[in-house]
Amino acid sequence: MTLLLHLADFNERRWADGFAAALPGRKVVTRADSYDPDEVEYIFIWKPKPDAFEGLHKLKAILSLGAGVDALLRNPSRPRDVPIARFMDEDLTQRMSDYVVSQVTMHQRLMTRFKRDQAAKQWRQLYPAPAWDATVGIMGLGALGLDAVRHLKVFGYKLRGWSRTAKEVNGVDVFTGPEQLEAFLSGTDILVNLLPLTAETQGILNYETFSKLKRGGIDNEGPVVINAARGGHQREADIVRALNDGTLKAASLDVFEVEPLPQDSPLWEMDNVYITPHIAAASSERTGVAYFSKVIKDHEAGLPLPNMIDFGRGY
Amino acid sequence: MTLLLHLADFNERRWADGFAAALPGRKVVTRADSYDPDEVEYIFIWKPKPDAFEGLHKLKAILSLGAGVDALLRNPSRPRDVPIARFMDEDLTQRMSDYVVSQVTMHQRLMTRFKRDQAAKQWRQLYPAPAWDATVGIMGLGALGLDAVRHLKVFGYKLRGWSRTAKEVNGVDVFTGPEQLEAFLSGTDILVNLLPLTAETQGILNYETFSKLKRGGIDNEGPVVINAARGGHQREADIVRALNDGTLKAASLDVFEVEPLPQDSPLWEMDNVYITPHIAAASSERTGVAYFSKVIKDHEAGLPLPNMIDFGRGY
Ligand SMILES: NC(=O)c1ccc[n+]([C@@H]2O[C@H](COP(=O)([O-])OP(=O)(O)OC[C@H]3O[C@@H](n4cnc5c(N)ncnc54)[C@H](OP(=O)(O)O)[C@@H]3O)[C@@H](O)[C@H]2O)c1
Ligand SMILES: NC(=O)c1ccc[n+]([C@@H]2O[C@H](COP(=O)([O-])OP(=O)(O)OC[C@H]3O[C@@H](n4cnc5c(N)ncnc54)[C@H](OP(=O)(O)O)[C@@H]3O)[C@@H](O)[C@H]2O)c1
Repeated sequence: MTLLLHLADFNERRWADGFAAALPGRKVVTRADSYDPDEVEYIFIWKPKPDAFEGLHKLKAILSLGAGVDALLRNPSRPRDVPIARFMDEDLTQRMSDYVVSQVTMHQRLMTRFKRDQAAKQWRQLYPAPAWDATVGIMGLGALGLDAVRHLKVFGYKLRGWSRTAKEVNGVDVFTGPEQLEAFLSGTDILVNLLPLTAETQGILNYETFSKLKRGGIDNEGPVVINAARGGHQREADIVRALNDGTLKAASLDVFEVEPLPQDSPLWEMDNVYITPHIAAASSERTGVAYFSKVIKDHEAGLPLPNMIDFGRGY
Repeated sequence: MTLLLHLADFNERRWADGFAAALPGRKVVTRADSYDPDEVEYIFIWKPKPDAFEGLHKLKAILSLGAGVDALLRNPSRPRDVPIARFMDEDLTQRMSDYVVSQVTMHQRLMTRFKRDQAAKQWRQLYPAPAWDATVGIMGLGALGLDAVRHLKVFGYKLRGWSRTAKEVNGVDVFTGPEQLEAFLSGTDILVNLLPLTAETQGILNYETFSKLKRGGIDNEGPVVINAARGGHQREADIVRALNDGTLKAASLDVFEVEPLPQDSPLWEMDNVYITPHIAAASSERTGVAYFSKVIKDHEAGLPLPNMIDFGRGY
């Protein structure tokens, strides 16, 4: 059995060494190594090249380093019948929740306003309202959305969530499907996107969506949007327009339509935009190797794959 | 019985109306009203003028709008035998914890680094380590310090605290007294000051203290200091020096040696300094009136004052 690593932007060699140590008796290779394609039963992948799967006819499972599999699903060479298991562990969810809470509390505490005052050397007192005066609306109540809920709850934020199927989440007003999107937005001060990118969610962070958010919240410094999911969810021209005309007061963006964000994007220079270079949450080598070497061993022993992608719904 | 309000920087009239409604049968006055000093049994006070207590010979209690009473204790006209009760409620502690967590997570998530990259239109990926890789050290484990602990715990931060007397706090390494200050500092990446201002704690945030903090933590962007207690705790010249020579990587300051912060302070222009104008936490009128009208009624009925200041220890 051979495990092939295909990781753009990551140190393939280090990950390969980690897997080799964790999977004695199996061959672990990168694209740079020589190997027999017919022996590749598992591929561990991030940002696949278009021909990533060519010649791999004996694949048993595709293991996705990323929690989001939109690029993988679109890949033209992907064998349509091979199951995909995605990464999901405590380390990843924690990093995402750290990011989400840091941005939510930053906006609730009016960072943009106080940084502008600081730049003008102005001392203007305003006591930010407590967390429970603000409503955080989370799009996507999956592994990441629910962990964000767990962290935000302790502050007493009013919480609402939006998902595809109906569900009950303690302490969260849950809205479901396109019919309830408007109602969900209308009560939201701080919008957090943690959806997977699918045909239904593509471009969902657009001007119309922003214009439906609650007005006047978080001490008149809302609404704000936080996108930590995928650049394909957002229309950047709409974000710029909404920020310019006050429909949005601020934005925290970890992901972009084109990455790296092009030099000529007006977002770079906006002081109420908080840009991070798609680093909200990544799997670490240590926990990633531990996670997927166990997945492979279990699968070889006949156990089902965890966190499998449902091809029908697209996530 | 007369309740006298003496509130600098606050809308005395609105507070007086609130108290009058909550305390039927009692006279509620501000300094602008006419009243008989000999009937003033309670004074509700914030930022007292030097002569604040002159002529008030029948005071039964001093009620402090502020959680910190350092200015009150120093006031020259204060009758030395009248007990002081300070404000403390859920609304105030929540606001402080909102502030503390927003600043802690902001630094852990490397805001200064990413904002600098944004200003330079640079896309440099670095995945911030999860919360549990950082140690937050809280000076002061009183009402505010313990509420900050409650909020920070859910992130999994390593937590340590420093107090005057020994105590056990679940999930927190507690250090006690001047002997253990150095040990406390040496393991701290993110230092949060929530001490009262006393003779012992005056100027404690100085260059020597900063130089004892842990090196190289939070992805090499630490150590950082967050001061939400009193300006008298910090030596601003030392903060500037420490930031300039890398002993500190960033600072969040809500309080200052002189407030408003003077126009010529170098702190205004430092991009790794996060200035807020002493607004981390204030008592709201709604909860403040409810709290102190109950305190007065209970005290009139013979019950002890809550949250009384211990003159011996100075807080
Ligand atoms: N920026 C980063 O560093 C980073 C890191 C990791 C992940 N991510 C992104 O975060 C995304 C979410 O991850 P996750 O693990 O939480 O996903 P997940 O567990 O699959 O949860 C997805 C959630 O979105 C909801 N959803 C899907 N389609 C929807 C639709 N059309 N309308 C309404 N709700 C819909 C789902 O609803 P149901 O509950 O009804 O199924 C579910 O609650 C990933 O897909 C990835 O793109 C970004
Ligand atoms: N910036 C703002 O908006 C704002 C708002 C509210 C309050 N504050 C400030 O926050 C301060 C703390 O409030 P709090 O309600 O938490 O106070 P608290 O309940 O009185 O607690 C004070 C804590 O500090 C510790 N302490 C006192 N002197 C010490 C010393 N010399 N060495 C080590 N530890 C010492 C105490 O130790 P023991 O437990 O051993 O007694 C206690 O744990 C207030 O005094 C006020 O100045 C600022």
